[in-house]
Amino acid sequence: MQMILRAFDTVLVELEEVREIFERELSTDEPAIADIIEQVGKFRGKMLRPALVLLCGKLCGPIKQSHRIIATVVEMLHMATLIHDDVLDEAEHRRRGKTINALHGNEAAVLLGDLLLSHAFSLCSQLQGNQAARLLSATTNVLCEGELLQLIYRGYYELTEERYLEIIDRKTASLITVSCLLGAQESGADARTAQAIEKFGNNMGMAFQIMDDIMDLTGDEAVQGKTLGTDLVKEKLTLPVIHYLRSSDSSQRKRVEQLLMEKRGSEYERFKKQLISSGSIEYARRRGREFVEKAQQALLEVPATQERELLEDLAISLIA
Amino acid sequence: MQMILRAFDTVLVELEEVREIFERELSTDEPAIADIIEQVGKFRGKMLRPALVLLCGKLCGPIKQSHRIIATVVEMLHMATLIHDDVLDEAEHRRRGKTINALHGNEAAVLLGDLLLSHAFSLCSQLQGNQAARLLSATTNVLCEGELLQLIYRGYYELTEERYLEIIDRKTASLITVSCLLGAQESGADARTAQAIEKFGNNMGMAFQIMDDIMDLTGDEAVQGKTLGTDLVKEKLTLPVIHYLRSSDSSQRKRVEQLLMEKRGSEYERFKKQLISSGSIEYARRRGREFVEKAQQALLEVPATQERELLEDLAISLIA
Repeated sequence: MQMILRAFDTVLVELEEVREIFERELSTDEPAIADIIEQVGKFRGKMLRPALVLLCGKLCGPIKQSHRIIATVVEMLHMATLIHDDVLDEAEHRRRGKTINALHGNEAAVLLGDLLLSHAFSLCSQLQGNQAARLLSATTNVLCEGELLQLIYRGYYELTEERYLEIIDRKTASLITVSCLLGAQESGADARTAQAIEKFGNNMGMAFQIMDDIMDLTGDEAVQGKTLGTDLVKEKLTLPVIHYLRSSDSSQRKRVEQLLMEKRGSEYERFKKQLISSGSIEYARRRGREFVEKAQQALLEVPATQERELLEDLAISLIA
Repeated sequence: MQMILRAFDTVLVELEEVREIFERELSTDEPAIADIIEQVGKFRGKMLRPALVLLCGKLCGPIKQSHRIIATVVEMLHMATLIHDDVLDEAEHRRRGKTINALHGNEAAVLLGDLLLSHAFSLCSQLQGNQAARLLSATTNVLCEGELLQLIYRGYYELTEERYLEIIDRKTASLITVSCLLGAQESGADARTAQAIEKFGNNMGMAFQIMDDIMDLTGDEAVQGKTLGTDLVKEKLTLPVIHYLRSSDSSQRKRVEQLLMEKRGSEYERFKKQLISSGSIEYARRRGREFVEKAQQALLEVPATQERELLEDLAISLIA
């Protein structure tokens, strides 16, 4: 899943402005805190969510300062969740070996994430009116519930596809959806366009998480630039594994459950190959493609501009 | 430090309404999440911050729905920080022994705190205008920086009293101050009264944290209902220790530093006695009393109502 650059190129100037707002908002006169905030940089990704705010904004009208602020807010919220995801339980901590910052690692990560959440809402409160703040905080309510559900369902081998989709809808699609929707609304999109953009964002978000989950099983760490295979370690059931388990007989299922429960890391590679040969990876990919198709369909309801084309390219790039 | 009940009695009905808003805001149709949210109950304290919003509100005029909402918000923010404080680093985790929820303990605590933060800002965004949201999010920015500073200065034996006071101002007094100020402002307090109430809150907050820090060294767990002595374990330097170190010669200082660094728990009791006999506890208490006196002075600027008397009682009860 390599995001094509053209979509980002179109909003390159605005993304740079978003970066400036981001840094200005987090600036502090405490050098020691500034040092810690600098670590946030290592979590900075391709800024998909800000790009969606800006592209959906451009699709419906001119970009305003409120777009840049909202784009900064969604990136801050996203990074806060990434950083808090990084808080490890004791067992994992040990398994991964003691890092230099092991002593204060978890605590610093928690506080840094909190600082980002706080500044995100602080930026929100600087917007005119509180409609965006309402929508964004309602979204983080949903997002947090999604993360909690994901935690609750760890190691639950009866997790259904339906429930999995509900969880990723909350924890991932929600913020991507609201990024698109607010981008459009801030440009004064009419109700029909806003609804179509919202639908686009939701399906794009679903596809994004499914493909990301597949990547965790099949990807190359060097290419992706992040640690992969962590879902198996955490007994986080994703679509390929859910499909594999439901297509298995009881003895096969038992074997997989034991492999994951006992964290037999040495057998992960063999299991991943089984997921491929059994067609479970391909099944998940197909589901991902279906969401991308729905995202494309939703776009048919919006004006056929250059931005619409770029949004479509962006959705397609997820499954490329 | 036993909060007198009279102040709370005056706002008992409103505090009950705050509890209802709290529970309604966090209600969810996911039973598993509801179970986790129920755990929040165990962190619920005496609701000092909501009581201050309500008392300062009553002092300046009638209580409105916005008071109740703000009171709920400050309690949610406070509880989020309590829960996130509970996230332990690996070392501490081990020292305290594995609890039942050790496997997901840290992660659930992080997410639960996030959920509270999110709902706090969600409630904020339901208020008319965004002045309260601005002030509250600016406060959480400051609060997070205070928590980060506290973490950074752990084990730093040159910590000065001045710097300690700056840290507790940010991490504790900030939210208590804004609770008082918003309570007054929502009742339409004039500028002079609002300023006096703000000053009261700040000094009350400073005294509160100093006395809480003393309690951690001298208190009785059974009476306080919480684990004490954790500051020494965490090498968190508080006022009595800062005073002791600066009054010591270099060999004494060295001994204390080693005792704390090497976490010689068996010597903590002897060290606590030294803090008492050396007058360091008494010194900290005197500083606490000075802040209470300043809080009382600030109140002289506001109308002499029953609420003013209760606020004064509340401040005095900190050092009783």
